[in-house]
Amino acid sequence: MKKSMLVNEVSEKTGLPKSEVEIIVNSMLDSITDALKAREAVSFIGFGSFVPVKKNAREIFIPGTTQKVQVEEKYGIKFKPSKKLKAIIEEA
Amino acid sequence: MKKSMLVNEVSEKTGLPKSEVEIIVNSMLDSITDALKAREAVSFIGFGSFVPVKKNAREIFIPGTTQKVQVEEKYGIKFKPSKKLKAIIEEA
Repeated sequence: MKKSMLVNEVSEKTGLPKSEVEIIVNSMLDSITDALKAREAVSFIGFGSFVPVKKNAREIFIPGTTQKVQVEEKYGIKFKPSKKLKAIIEEA
Repeated sequence: MKKSMLVNEVSEKTGLPKSEVEIIVNSMLDSITDALKAREAVSFIGFGSFVPVKKNAREIFIPGTTQKVQVEEKYGIKFKPSKKLKAIIEEA
């Protein structure tokens, strides 16, 4: 499912105009991005949390060679589904 | 950041009433949950995708014992950040 289909669905379910739904969905994704950029977790009770995770600096082999290269410390994102969401997905 | 704070922020940014933002955010999370329950991925261009992942059945040791137990096949969720989101998070 793509964002445009989700926007249609939410608009139908709520009776609110597509244009408004789209503005809100985009603004929400922007706010989540800004929070993660500030290394802040974003949590939705009953759904799950987006959590910034630090990946330590490490040395890796260049594939196919015996040469090592240093990978710097960097941040990634992990999504931790809530217990409720996990249960729904597992059951289905 | 919790959902209530996100709703406030989105309401301020968009000028749309908090009550509407909350209805849309909740409806959106419900639609994502329903799609994942149907084993369908949900993708937001420029942000990332929620992908259902199958975890194969396997045998594990009961911690602290030498006894094995069968864990059944089950589904989980993975969030794959978009290249854009990854870059924003890494840079910050």
